[in-house]
Amino acid sequence: MSEEKTFHLSSDDFRRQGYAVIDWIADYLERVERLPVLSRAQPGELRALLPEHAPARGEPFEAVLADVERLILPGITHWQSPNFFAYFPANSSGPAILGELLAAGLGVQGMLWSTSPACTELETQVLDWLVPMLGLPERFSSAGAGGGVIQDSASSATLCALLAARERATRFASNRRGADGRLVAYCSTQTHSSVEKAAKIVGIGAENLRQIEVDERFAMRPDLLAQRIAADEAAGLVPCFVCATVGTTSSTAVDPVREIGRLCRERGLWLHVDAAMCGTAALCPEFRYLHDGVELADSYCFNPHKWMFTNFDCDCFYVADRKHLIETLSVLPEYLRNKATESGAVIDYRDWQVPLGRRFRALKLWFVIRHYGVEGLQHHVREHVRLAQRFADWVRDDPRFELAAPAPLNLVCFRLRSGDAANQRLLDALNASGDLYLTHTKLDGKLSLRLCVGQTRTEERHVAAAWRRIQDVASTLRP
Amino acid sequence: MSEEKTFHLSSDDFRRQGYAVIDWIADYLERVERLPVLSRAQPGELRALLPEHAPARGEPFEAVLADVERLILPGITHWQSPNFFAYFPANSSGPAILGELLAAGLGVQGMLWSTSPACTELETQVLDWLVPMLGLPERFSSAGAGGGVIQDSASSATLCALLAARERATRFASNRRGADGRLVAYCSTQTHSSVEKAAKIVGIGAENLRQIEVDERFAMRPDLLAQRIAADEAAGLVPCFVCATVGTTSSTAVDPVREIGRLCRERGLWLHVDAAMCGTAALCPEFRYLHDGVELADSYCFNPHKWMFTNFDCDCFYVADRKHLIETLSVLPEYLRNKATESGAVIDYRDWQVPLGRRFRALKLWFVIRHYGVEGLQHHVREHVRLAQRFADWVRDDPRFELAAPAPLNLVCFRLRSGDAANQRLLDALNASGDLYLTHTKLDGKLSLRLCVGQTRTEERHVAAAWRRIQDVASTLRP
Repeated sequence: MSEEKTFHLSSDDFRRQGYAVIDWIADYLERVERLPVLSRAQPGELRALLPEHAPARGEPFEAVLADVERLILPGITHWQSPNFFAYFPANSSGPAILGELLAAGLGVQGMLWSTSPACTELETQVLDWLVPMLGLPERFSSAGAGGGVIQDSASSATLCALLAARERATRFASNRRGADGRLVAYCSTQTHSSVEKAAKIVGIGAENLRQIEVDERFAMRPDLLAQRIAADEAAGLVPCFVCATVGTTSSTAVDPVREIGRLCRERGLWLHVDAAMCGTAALCPEFRYLHDGVELADSYCFNPHKWMFTNFDCDCFYVADRKHLIETLSVLPEYLRNKATESGAVIDYRDWQVPLGRRFRALKLWFVIRHYGVEGLQHHVREHVRLAQRFADWVRDDPRFELAAPAPLNLVCFRLRSGDAANQRLLDALNASGDLYLTHTKLDGKLSLRLCVGQTRTEERHVAAAWRRIQDVASTLRP
Repeated sequence: MSEEKTFHLSSDDFRRQGYAVIDWIADYLERVERLPVLSRAQPGELRALLPEHAPARGEPFEAVLADVERLILPGITHWQSPNFFAYFPANSSGPAILGELLAAGLGVQGMLWSTSPACTELETQVLDWLVPMLGLPERFSSAGAGGGVIQDSASSATLCALLAARERATRFASNRRGADGRLVAYCSTQTHSSVEKAAKIVGIGAENLRQIEVDERFAMRPDLLAQRIAADEAAGLVPCFVCATVGTTSSTAVDPVREIGRLCRERGLWLHVDAAMCGTAALCPEFRYLHDGVELADSYCFNPHKWMFTNFDCDCFYVADRKHLIETLSVLPEYLRNKATESGAVIDYRDWQVPLGRRFRALKLWFVIRHYGVEGLQHHVREHVRLAQRFADWVRDDPRFELAAPAPLNLVCFRLRSGDAANQRLLDALNASGDLYLTHTKLDGKLSLRLCVGQTRTEERHVAAAWRRIQDVASTLRP
């Protein structure tokens, strides 16, 4: 066999192709606001255009990039469009994209400190930076007993929190002998579906997750939570975990964390605070009230990959007592033993998460924070909130519409007063137009539209155009 | 507030900085073989050099990139060095890096088909391509009842498989009411630690994971497995899951999948086959024997991010019956409802994994397969195996050394005959030299060194230099 033959990309070709991809992305981000936001592809459309089998021989890069344009782009729903107001955003930025690129280029594994010390230490440091940046309690910093770690998503953070709670409540008996059917967890009717998923995964079961009713602002009612915990205790069950949300998915409702936290302390329950979307707002002192009571939490998470210009995946998960989490998730086979781990002087993040392997995700977060500075991040958060508040004012001023929930930050839930059918037609027509993309929820049993301002490139003109489009389409609907 | 003020990176600056990062990576990959493979950083060394607080104001990109060179690089253990022979590789390639870059640039969420149809359909298609590429059974393709999905890691694939097994065994009662302490799972003493972690996570418990003894080749003994299942059934327990490994982490031992599979069919257990490392070898027909019996499995995974030139994270996870997995992991709140999902005509990959959000990881896999073609991938796999076999020959020819296990593919486990202390000194000296990086395991109770050939840029000269270094260091050790 020839020693010379290689199929690898040469260094020169990598440079040339790399520049081309950089240019493609720059061009894409310049033109994305003119593309239909919601993909118009039909099920199976792309697959029908792709070859049935993998190529036997390599193909030129130019052919692949042309296919990105021709085949992939029509199947993209443009999350980076300034006209994307759906779900919660997954915003991004130049520095984040380049940080991700660098992480891919370095290609290290951060499972152990020793498998790349910088991957672990930069992550610890940047997550410590965020503690004062967000006005979080000092106990979440690694200087004390706590610490932060990057998870892929708030779903995974919730799962880890629930596992640690399960083990604390059973003194690690669940890890050894399995769950025993007596554990109970709590959230509200508005809590994200990932909590139900986690309750199933960890062997607690969906029926043992109590969904507590909410008040008129869609926030959990702590009086009902207290009643339910007492009833479960009286029935011989073992309440172990509460998830409180700072900014629910439906309407950015904020649960009363302080009251819930006091209750959890009293009854010995683990309190996890899910601030996936709205935690970022606390970069600005005027929104730091959102974190009132978080010092009573055992764990907390927020997602820079939603609203802090850091591309997915980047969820920051904090615990007040890292020992507990580590003891819950640690398994140490021979092939992972090493001196640094045994010295106890280092963090091995594999014990803070479900998977073993992990990318160098701290790089992109570091790039973002250094590029924007605290000042730049605050500026854009304030601007998004300002635009959403302006939109809420427009809704209030149009008698055909009503707000469906309080709009404390950058999400506005609204609807036509004329009923679900009209709102469904409005939503479908808007999304079919390609000019903007909204999603929906149900609030008080009524179909409601959600407009969330959080995309990196969204400016006032985009929000104003969205509102004009909404008004115009509303006018064409038969009464 | 000024409408003009923005802190975002301009398009021109993104291009300029993007080229610089591409160049940095190209330079890095050219010089990486001359850098000490294992980082020499001490615990806390990087953190001591980083500012205590985040910058209030943004900093120039040039300062950040200079810090990557000055601060980060010394803390990197170079997984992309051709002298990296440790663990299993996490290899990468130019096309993979550019695919990851493009995915970051597009910044879409693939949680639902509708949130970017191309993200889902390209993934389904590329995973279908891999079925014949690896000689996997047709039932894993999406054309029938099965299908593939990209997970972040084999740990997560195992977790999903175990969850589906748990739910099949309990007819979804565990999801509803929690685990009941009667479920039992099986693996071997050589199985990856992620199976124990998963058994803890899903509420089965580590004590209910039976670690079956292995034969002299470190492969699971099906006779002992059968005995243990029978004993557990007789004790009123509920055996539900077996993990068989094609290429164990310690020594790439291959469990007898066909025999285990027959037993699982007979007793109604879910069989998961973990081929994280060695599945890639099956690209070559001469190694396809590795997949003998896989048609009896309920699920299967392998990691292109180990040995198929696709940067982490990219684990391909297949199930024979996708309905079962989906029913296990699906939760559908109002805000995720959409017409495409309700039509039943599309795949929503959020129901195939633990997290809700997901990146467009299929892009990098597609880039890799199109760049190399099947031919290019086969070439490099064969070359890695050839180099490892040559290394094994050299070990056999040196009377001071012995092979510690069969070396069927690209991993060679070996040791000095002179005992654990000598091997530890050998390992420490080699890794401290910076010239290469090996890790260890225990086989037959003896400390053994592992040399795995799987790095993208590893050529014969690197393996030969490693062997010379090993011999030289061995010569300096006092007998």
